[in-house]
Amino acid sequence: MDYMNGPGRHHLFVPGPVNIPEPVIRAMNRNNEDYRAPAIPALTKSLLEDVKKIFKTTTGTPFMIPTTGTGAWESALTNTLSPGDKVISFLIGQFSLLWIDQQKRLGFDVDVIESEWGKGADLEAMGSKLAADTAHNIKAICIVHNETATGVTNNLATVRRVLDHYNHPALLLVDGVSSICALDFRMDEWGIDVALTGSQKALSLPTGMGIVCASPKALEASKTAKSVRVFFDWNDYLKFYKMGSYWPYTPSIQLLYGLKAALELIFEEGLDNVIARHARLGKATRLAVDAWGLKNCTQGEEWFSDTVTAVVVPPHIDSNEIVKRAWKRYNMSLGLGLNKVAGKVFRIGHLGHLNELQLLGCLAGVEMILKDVGYPIKLGSGVAAAAAYLQNSTPMIPSRI
Amino acid sequence: MDYMNGPGRHHLFVPGPVNIPEPVIRAMNRNNEDYRAPAIPALTKSLLEDVKKIFKTTTGTPFMIPTTGTGAWESALTNTLSPGDKVISFLIGQFSLLWIDQQKRLGFDVDVIESEWGKGADLEAMGSKLAADTAHNIKAICIVHNETATGVTNNLATVRRVLDHYNHPALLLVDGVSSICALDFRMDEWGIDVALTGSQKALSLPTGMGIVCASPKALEASKTAKSVRVFFDWNDYLKFYKMGSYWPYTPSIQLLYGLKAALELIFEEGLDNVIARHARLGKATRLAVDAWGLKNCTQGEEWFSDTVTAVVVPPHIDSNEIVKRAWKRYNMSLGLGLNKVAGKVFRIGHLGHLNELQLLGCLAGVEMILKDVGYPIKLGSGVAAAAAYLQNSTPMIPSRI
Amino acid sequence: MDYMNGPGRHHLFVPGPVNIPEPVIRAMNRNNEDYRAPAIPALTKSLLEDVKKIFKTTTGTPFMIPTTGTGAWESALTNTLSPGDKVISFLIGQFSLLWIDQQKRLGFDVDVIESEWGKGADLEAMGSKLAADTAHNIKAICIVHNETATGVTNNLATVRRVLDHYNHPALLLVDGVSSICALDFRMDEWGIDVALTGSQKALSLPTGMGIVCASPKALEASKTAKSVRVFFDWNDYLKFYKMGSYWPYTPSIQLLYGLKAALELIFEEGLDNVIARHARLGKATRLAVDAWGLKNCTQGEEWFSDTVTAVVVPPHIDSNEIVKRAWKRYNMSLGLGLNKVAGKVFRIGHLGHLNELQLLGCLAGVEMILKDVGYPIKLGSGVAAAAAYLQNSTPMIPSRI
Amino acid sequence: MDYMNGPGRHHLFVPGPVNIPEPVIRAMNRNNEDYRAPAIPALTKSLLEDVKKIFKTTTGTPFMIPTTGTGAWESALTNTLSPGDKVISFLIGQFSLLWIDQQKRLGFDVDVIESEWGKGADLEAMGSKLAADTAHNIKAICIVHNETATGVTNNLATVRRVLDHYNHPALLLVDGVSSICALDFRMDEWGIDVALTGSQKALSLPTGMGIVCASPKALEASKTAKSVRVFFDWNDYLKFYKMGSYWPYTPSIQLLYGLKAALELIFEEGLDNVIARHARLGKATRLAVDAWGLKNCTQGEEWFSDTVTAVVVPPHIDSNEIVKRAWKRYNMSLGLGLNKVAGKVFRIGHLGHLNELQLLGCLAGVEMILKDVGYPIKLGSGVAAAAAYLQNSTPMIPSRI
Repeated sequence: MDYMNGPGRHHLFVPGPVNIPEPVIRAMNRNNEDYRAPAIPALTKSLLEDVKKIFKTTTGTPFMIPTTGTGAWESALTNTLSPGDKVISFLIGQFSLLWIDQQKRLGFDVDVIESEWGKGADLEAMGSKLAADTAHNIKAICIVHNETATGVTNNLATVRRVLDHYNHPALLLVDGVSSICALDFRMDEWGIDVALTGSQKALSLPTGMGIVCASPKALEASKTAKSVRVFFDWNDYLKFYKMGSYWPYTPSIQLLYGLKAALELIFEEGLDNVIARHARLGKATRLAVDAWGLKNCTQGEEWFSDTVTAVVVPPHIDSNEIVKRAWKRYNMSLGLGLNKVAGKVFRIGHLGHLNELQLLGCLAGVEMILKDVGYPIKLGSGVAAAAAYLQNSTPMIPSRI
Repeated sequence: MDYMNGPGRHHLFVPGPVNIPEPVIRAMNRNNEDYRAPAIPALTKSLLEDVKKIFKTTTGTPFMIPTTGTGAWESALTNTLSPGDKVISFLIGQFSLLWIDQQKRLGFDVDVIESEWGKGADLEAMGSKLAADTAHNIKAICIVHNETATGVTNNLATVRRVLDHYNHPALLLVDGVSSICALDFRMDEWGIDVALTGSQKALSLPTGMGIVCASPKALEASKTAKSVRVFFDWNDYLKFYKMGSYWPYTPSIQLLYGLKAALELIFEEGLDNVIARHARLGKATRLAVDAWGLKNCTQGEEWFSDTVTAVVVPPHIDSNEIVKRAWKRYNMSLGLGLNKVAGKVFRIGHLGHLNELQLLGCLAGVEMILKDVGYPIKLGSGVAAAAAYLQNSTPMIPSRI
Repeated sequence: MDYMNGPGRHHLFVPGPVNIPEPVIRAMNRNNEDYRAPAIPALTKSLLEDVKKIFKTTTGTPFMIPTTGTGAWESALTNTLSPGDKVISFLIGQFSLLWIDQQKRLGFDVDVIESEWGKGADLEAMGSKLAADTAHNIKAICIVHNETATGVTNNLATVRRVLDHYNHPALLLVDGVSSICALDFRMDEWGIDVALTGSQKALSLPTGMGIVCASPKALEASKTAKSVRVFFDWNDYLKFYKMGSYWPYTPSIQLLYGLKAALELIFEEGLDNVIARHARLGKATRLAVDAWGLKNCTQGEEWFSDTVTAVVVPPHIDSNEIVKRAWKRYNMSLGLGLNKVAGKVFRIGHLGHLNELQLLGCLAGVEMILKDVGYPIKLGSGVAAAAAYLQNSTPMIPSRI
Repeated sequence: MDYMNGPGRHHLFVPGPVNIPEPVIRAMNRNNEDYRAPAIPALTKSLLEDVKKIFKTTTGTPFMIPTTGTGAWESALTNTLSPGDKVISFLIGQFSLLWIDQQKRLGFDVDVIESEWGKGADLEAMGSKLAADTAHNIKAICIVHNETATGVTNNLATVRRVLDHYNHPALLLVDGVSSICALDFRMDEWGIDVALTGSQKALSLPTGMGIVCASPKALEASKTAKSVRVFFDWNDYLKFYKMGSYWPYTPSIQLLYGLKAALELIFEEGLDNVIARHARLGKATRLAVDAWGLKNCTQGEEWFSDTVTAVVVPPHIDSNEIVKRAWKRYNMSLGLGLNKVAGKVFRIGHLGHLNELQLLGCLAGVEMILKDVGYPIKLGSGVAAAAAYLQNSTPMIPSRI
């Protein structure tokens, strides 16, 4: 028996991979093609232009690398830094932890600024370090925009302000994996030097494309960066961009057509509307959590994430049991608590191709599961709180007005 | 702009066509084939065996006709009756009305037993007529098992009991379009002579296959029935069944493979579990309607339908507005009220490939819409009522235990 | 093991169902939709306009019926004629035979004009009958434009000329199943009253949509035609056309989107280019047959069909063996000889979504099979003859110039 | 207009990406899933077992990395070697050149043994170097099994014999990108330490999965190898293998299901039959090239490749023009000549999901194109030569006997 065969649709509420829109599934439903024939370069050229819009950059250079978010991290780091380079990195949850681990293993001198899980990056600590670094030994600030493990969104505008305040030339490298195309993200305005995301997150594609976007300053840095790299080397891409054939090695034909369809949907809805929708669904989720009498793992509303909510369960409940039961009984995937918060939180991913009624179905399911595991919940309470907000804030669908 | 492009999944809650399971969509994602090559006859042979199981018949002969439910009706009637034949038919809603219209236009002498919309077939009236018909002029009883317009399920076991009571030889022709594969249906046990359904209903396929199943008595009747028919003639099928090539004309290759996948899913879940799931979702819906303080169009619990619920709105509200708003604002399709109940009811289809959280999402959506249109609803009330029941009754998913 | 699993692509060379283009397969790869919501009527409206172009009519009214070619036949006949009506029909092969059988069973008085299989309709005989029919008892001429069993294309322009010559008001009903969208077809110019085709032929869709187009005169006739009909009744469609909801019963959502994609491809290539491509592939096939020293079943070049070639095998060879071997050894489907020419001919379908190299692969395969079964063929001879012609006549692909 | 829209199927004859079988396209036609839920680990576990069969290893450990062949190269090298390590590498064409470039950029001391393009690896030169290396400074032999640019297959059994002859402990790293699953490949028997392939080659999947298989000796080497690596680090995989969750970062759900379907097809046909089919198509292609009077770029039959044939064109013809014309006029993709042989050869890829008639269609097309560009070819000559061989050697299709 196929595990995935259950009655009705699977309810996918992990913070990635997320639901793929039907038009995108259709667009990828195709045979391979010769990537050296004229069709693929023409498609790639237009995608490279369009993809800049989701980073809100006009000066950046995007690279669509056949890899995952982890590979995109590696591409960002190795193209801009040299072994031994000092970088500041913020440890605030499992994904920032993994990136820091990568930074160390790639040979950088990582100055870790740790926060309690559930809090955001300590930008004051960063300020102090920058202030002290008059020699400009700090080569880069590495920050995860949205920590997927705890549902914490860092304030990138402030990061930029602090850097500018100290007039510090460090590169600003941003993991936008669970933020770009879902949260407010402004590469140019915020002076981000490398921004990156993965196809299976807010772009709502399958996994397999890491999109990295480099500012002119980052490109400049890549000319002297001594980190060893071949597969992830931007320079190989730039050579093929110049030649007009675009690909140093074989891309996924299907993902390219899928990206085209995904961007069309995003631009049709309007990127700002997409971001507003995420804000709406994020707030609705938090209202439900409040109504249930549970705590959000995020310890301060300035860090609330509109793409994922980590819900803290009471001490006597194992959050793993909630996730297991969601899958086994209600055909729903929720996110596990990871590392320090394993067993203590479960996560509701609310990013990508998603709407109000899908979320309310999820919240209704979470209520039943909470009751299943013995939490004294009033069924319908969270749904009611979320719906009261959504009923006031949900706009008409643009294509149907 | 494509009307169907909206954020997130479309919520399809009309009582047909219904959601197609992903494995079925996959199975149909294919090129055409030569239907005279060995693959298609082999596939057809096994499908003809398997399809009998959903009718609960071992003695019936199924015909998978490239047509809709309307065509299946025509096939049932023209193969068993002759022009001028007297038939009893029950008018209880829009679909029974349409079938009666067809019966009349095909030249039968239709004795219509009418009930108020919302009530089931008047089987006492039928009994009187059968009692009076000592000459056995009545050739057939035509009954819609589940009237999709009002959400009324007739009791077929009683129909059979009445026929047997009067020892009446009339054929029993049953429209099972919105019942077979979703409601309890027992062709052999209930002595049904012709039963029929359409692919886009509980089988959760695209439209395009009308499945008609004939008892030995119906097949016998087809030898003398004088209604003119060619495309719908069972005899052409029977000739090709005998030859082992099965098809008098070209079938849809895609629907055959789709039916195979659909039946595999149904048998994997278990037909009785599928029926129990429909009962569960039907009851949950009715509990929500009660909690909202609204009336079910169905006027008696003996007729409650587990595949569709027609909800009566207060007089000052136009139910069309509810359906329109569902589509425009919440990306959901609800069923309109038809004919006599147009503007007065909206319908929630809960049949086919569907599960608890999908339904709860729908109910949450209906609540918001009711508030949108000015009905003084307590948000979450219906969801809570439905969830309280579902939380107690939903079993583990068979494939995941 | 799945019969259809073989190494490489299946080579589908029956004259229907034909290969579906990838963009069309993609377009149909979708969930069901509510056909009463705004999207489907809007789509239907535009399809009804576009579909007229493939009939070359501006005055006709098309009906897209969820049925097969056989159903489309029935729709054409029952909507325009009354039982007992006299019609002229041409028996020239298996498909005209089947249509005549239907005409008789529907109760018409069929005057059959028979030709030797391999010859076209005897239009002189038709002329004599029309001349004699001064009382205008003949109500319709029924003619198959392209007889798929023998590869014979009748001259419809001449049929019209003969009718006009005798100033005869008979309706002209044309089966264009294996011609429309592939052969020159001009509904308005040739005064055709009902033309029909099936989705799985030159439109390159799955089976399941019979498209029938009625002239104003045919629509007028439908008002008084007394043939019993419900499912196939144009009037039900016309009522729903007027209401703007378009469908008297549920259409296949997938076929509607598929038709849209199919028409887009056809119009992008250009309908006249599509027809020219069929002419090119037809001629190439005939040149190969000549080079092999085999006879075309078609007995006169005025009747050569550009959509299917029936090849006569020498008496000591069983053509069924050729078809069987194509399937078992070379992963190719060829058409069987039917009825009178069973065992004597095999058929190469060259219609729909097909190009030069696909055809040459097929011809190379036929050569190997002919050798397999003992025919003394020079391998490469037919391919060479076809290629010599194609190399001179194949244009650049419009989208790639 | 979409470049890929042309009449009929596209003929994809580049040596990768290759045609995807319909069942594989179907298997990938799906939504995302949570890769931490039970379904994906269970699937991964069985794939890791099954994938060993295509390497013909029982002792190897496979890694299915979300990357391309270039990434798989990097994974093979960085996990087994340390910067400065001496490796022997063979330069025989564009792909070996690129790998050597990577080896150098990753910091290894590459001893390049160059051959004329069109010849295989100079194993005698390797022998001499191994003989001289009594200190065992040479840490690895890097060899491309099948050089895709020139159509040259190296003899890996001999490589192993030479290594054994000198009792040399160097690791044997093999690029099997255009060989594994198509050519005879025996990881265990030939003592290969790292073998790798890409999903878009003989496995007939989309691009995006680099499969690397490590011998126990290679795994041992990975414990001390000092090359910097994170994304490509086997150790991260091994940790997750042990935990039973298998993935250190997000895999492509679609490619996993696709791989399952691809392997099922391969095992159903039989891996040895798959290899025999490639041998048959390779030989047929070479017979055609001979018949055309053209030269194979491969300069010795011991190196003939059964997955790709590079055809040398006469000096006055530009092979790019042939490729361009194939695409623009005949809807076919052929491989360009690369680097040293640019403009001098065109390449016919005959690997993956492909059969006899597809190849003959390609060859017929190449003949027309050669005539188009002025080469005095006898049309049908190559097809005849290939068909004469294929007609004798093609077996019945296993599923249809």
